[in-house]
Amino acid sequence: MSTKEFDVLVIGGGPGGYVAAIRAAQLGFKTACCESNPYADPKGEPRLGGTCLNVGCIPSKALLHTSHLFEEAGHAFESQGISVGTPKIDVAKMIGRKSTIVDQLTGGIKGLFKKNKVTLLNGHGAFAGKTDAGWHINVGEELVIAKQVIVATGSAPRHLPGIPVDNKIVCDNVGALDIDAVPKKLAVIGAGVIGLEMGSVWRRLGAEVIVLEAMPDFLAAADQDVAKEAQKLFTKQGLKFNLGVQIGEVKVGKKGVAINYKDKDGADQKLEADRLIVSVGRVPNTAGLNADAVGLKITERGMIEVDDHCRTNLPGVWAVGDVVRGPMLAHKAMEEGVMVAELMAGQAGHCNFDTIPWVIYTSPEIAWVGKTEQQLKAAGVAYKVGKIPFLANGRALGMGDPTGFVKMLADANTDRILGVHIIGPNASELIGEAVVAMEFAGCSEDLARICHAHPTLSEVVHEAALACDKRPLHF
Amino acid sequence: MSTKEFDVLVIGGGPGGYVAAIRAAQLGFKTACCESNPYADPKGEPRLGGTCLNVGCIPSKALLHTSHLFEEAGHAFESQGISVGTPKIDVAKMIGRKSTIVDQLTGGIKGLFKKNKVTLLNGHGAFAGKTDAGWHINVGEELVIAKQVIVATGSAPRHLPGIPVDNKIVCDNVGALDIDAVPKKLAVIGAGVIGLEMGSVWRRLGAEVIVLEAMPDFLAAADQDVAKEAQKLFTKQGLKFNLGVQIGEVKVGKKGVAINYKDKDGADQKLEADRLIVSVGRVPNTAGLNADAVGLKITERGMIEVDDHCRTNLPGVWAVGDVVRGPMLAHKAMEEGVMVAELMAGQAGHCNFDTIPWVIYTSPEIAWVGKTEQQLKAAGVAYKVGKIPFLANGRALGMGDPTGFVKMLADANTDRILGVHIIGPNASELIGEAVVAMEFAGCSEDLARICHAHPTLSEVVHEAALACDKRPLHF
Repeated sequence: MSTKEFDVLVIGGGPGGYVAAIRAAQLGFKTACCESNPYADPKGEPRLGGTCLNVGCIPSKALLHTSHLFEEAGHAFESQGISVGTPKIDVAKMIGRKSTIVDQLTGGIKGLFKKNKVTLLNGHGAFAGKTDAGWHINVGEELVIAKQVIVATGSAPRHLPGIPVDNKIVCDNVGALDIDAVPKKLAVIGAGVIGLEMGSVWRRLGAEVIVLEAMPDFLAAADQDVAKEAQKLFTKQGLKFNLGVQIGEVKVGKKGVAINYKDKDGADQKLEADRLIVSVGRVPNTAGLNADAVGLKITERGMIEVDDHCRTNLPGVWAVGDVVRGPMLAHKAMEEGVMVAELMAGQAGHCNFDTIPWVIYTSPEIAWVGKTEQQLKAAGVAYKVGKIPFLANGRALGMGDPTGFVKMLADANTDRILGVHIIGPNASELIGEAVVAMEFAGCSEDLARICHAHPTLSEVVHEAALACDKRPLHF
Repeated sequence: MSTKEFDVLVIGGGPGGYVAAIRAAQLGFKTACCESNPYADPKGEPRLGGTCLNVGCIPSKALLHTSHLFEEAGHAFESQGISVGTPKIDVAKMIGRKSTIVDQLTGGIKGLFKKNKVTLLNGHGAFAGKTDAGWHINVGEELVIAKQVIVATGSAPRHLPGIPVDNKIVCDNVGALDIDAVPKKLAVIGAGVIGLEMGSVWRRLGAEVIVLEAMPDFLAAADQDVAKEAQKLFTKQGLKFNLGVQIGEVKVGKKGVAINYKDKDGADQKLEADRLIVSVGRVPNTAGLNADAVGLKITERGMIEVDDHCRTNLPGVWAVGDVVRGPMLAHKAMEEGVMVAELMAGQAGHCNFDTIPWVIYTSPEIAWVGKTEQQLKAAGVAYKVGKIPFLANGRALGMGDPTGFVKMLADANTDRILGVHIIGPNASELIGEAVVAMEFAGCSEDLARICHAHPTLSEVVHEAALACDKRPLHF
């Protein structure tokens, strides 16, 4: 067993880990990042980018784009004067394009490691002990001694007892991205981000999609105005929702699956489908860390315990991303990765958890930042609301997609923006200016007085800001 | 002749005028807005929204969207696994959809007038004199007496001597939006916003498009990095550019046009085409105002002379939008309209001309705010540059459109953002956060430290901010 020494070892090469490693190296630390090969690289090499890049955000957006175009061709072209024959989808080609993009980007991060002089180690990292020289970590066959360690091991899909995932008939997020033909009937358990995005992809391509959700409320984390609009729009598109269900026995055969469940009224129901996607949340990856060997504190919910600055209970050991508290979002992990690297360098690293945007890439997209109306109500905060639909927005009409709205929540006394909630075309990009305004502690009047290019969708954000003061110009 | 009295009369119902009228009415002024019928409403009624809504921003975006989808269907679908056969365009249907959107929005502004209690007067407004009661304005057959007047008469396309525009064979912006069949060969004089947008529409639909431009530089107002990239990309798409030309005799026949011109080397050239679009700038509409009757000062270039607060030389007479100095942009006109209404009400109306965004809706889109690199050089300002391509952006790759870049310019000493220049997918919406940051006098480090949702195109703005400090994470 060879031994290597580093200033910093990052365990895990996902968004939190690779960004932390790059930033640490930029700041002068001799840095390594270890990654195993969970994504079955044919050469056996570690693939950087983690869940997000390999089996999450990036491949899902590629499929969402293709399936969106497919739906446009079938449903939106004719009214615009474009005639095409009945569109056909070559699923293998669609999946192939997705895989090419993933390969390009994972390879790209290897290039970034080289450019920034981060050493990439091939293997799973597990704590082995500590000496005066630093933390001892076993990485595959090697021993790494590092003065500081950043744990960024991410998360894995939560599976349900009695429902074995084979990623052929029963898929988690991994298999859902590689389904090899459009299912006639697709069942989805879990109406969260992944369920809605993947359900949308396969519905657009022709599948009948039925979503079962244990919670009685749709998108409980979102502002309930947005959630209601989303449920209405997705239902109109053809997604079928059964909320408040209790999943019972699931029988998996060679060609399909039969799901027994109780509906919200307690009546026994049975759903037969060709495929099933299980998307019921994710669990932090801590099992393989050998945390006990060094006394690294894990919470009851299986996360590594950290403070606001991502410090664990062990000196010189940090943890970022899905493996710690907070939303399991790639950009939150990256923010934490940068913060930790800068704190290690004695800088004033900081992460504002109040301004981390959320995005769901359905059509229309959903994005928000800050507090929801129900959170403000529960906290007893006096607030005002500006809510403007995309209905009369010239750009949205030009795009043939005038759906949804922007809802801004501002403090009734100080006018400070407390939350911005968007369901509508390009919400993922529109949320950007709201985040910037909130980071500057901006008021609704600030956004109301800032010039917005015409004609853009962002004018609806502008009008929502004006509407907080009950003086919209275009509604 | 009947007489009507108002606190405020707005002459012209385009973006500057209708917004000024709505805001004035909101602030308690008894307000009227007069508009003639230049857009040939079949009922003879005034159509609100001006050039922008009737024959500018809005209809062009509708055609750009349809033609973009048409091009995607023909060129981008197959690589994604979508097969549709050769797409065909029904130009009449495309134009019809565009007209429906325009009708909906112009009608919508009438609704906004009703809601905000603005009186709409049918007729052209012309100054007639002044008494103690206020300014006298003839509006069609009526005399209006108003304590304050806002002139918002907009602009008209500049025509070239010897090239009569019939909006059939030879079109300005009006006819370019209503061409009834895809021309085999389309000539465009003027490589500005309208020329590039309309040239793109008809090229995508199958026309051979040749653009003649008198200036030796392409997009001289834009940052020259952006201009060069744009010329390269548009040329690759098939637009043909001849810069530095001198237009000679133009012969217009029943089925086409022959344009004699000297190329940049002074050699005689002749271009024959089925249609010609003349888009060589716009001139302020002041001729019909009867400005002399009251001594309203007009500049040598035909604009109404105003100060930074849109005050003319006459007390109680204001002017906004294309008819005054500054860029001829709808959102600039709207900002001025709001400012004037608030100043009239004794409020602190203000318009920050340094943060008005520019947008060109080609593909990729072009948008910028603040100073260009050549402006900073000329002014001797020390600056730093952060420039990041969309090439490695996951969202851009997912969309199949990883073209262009974001370039940020920040003060070398204070780090304050001085300009942001974007050529790339969705630039029109991405520029929003840059405008907000600049309005808050933000630094590149501010944007660098603000969380950007992943995966979004806005991450390229984030990386450009990081690159100002030479520490991009993803490039």
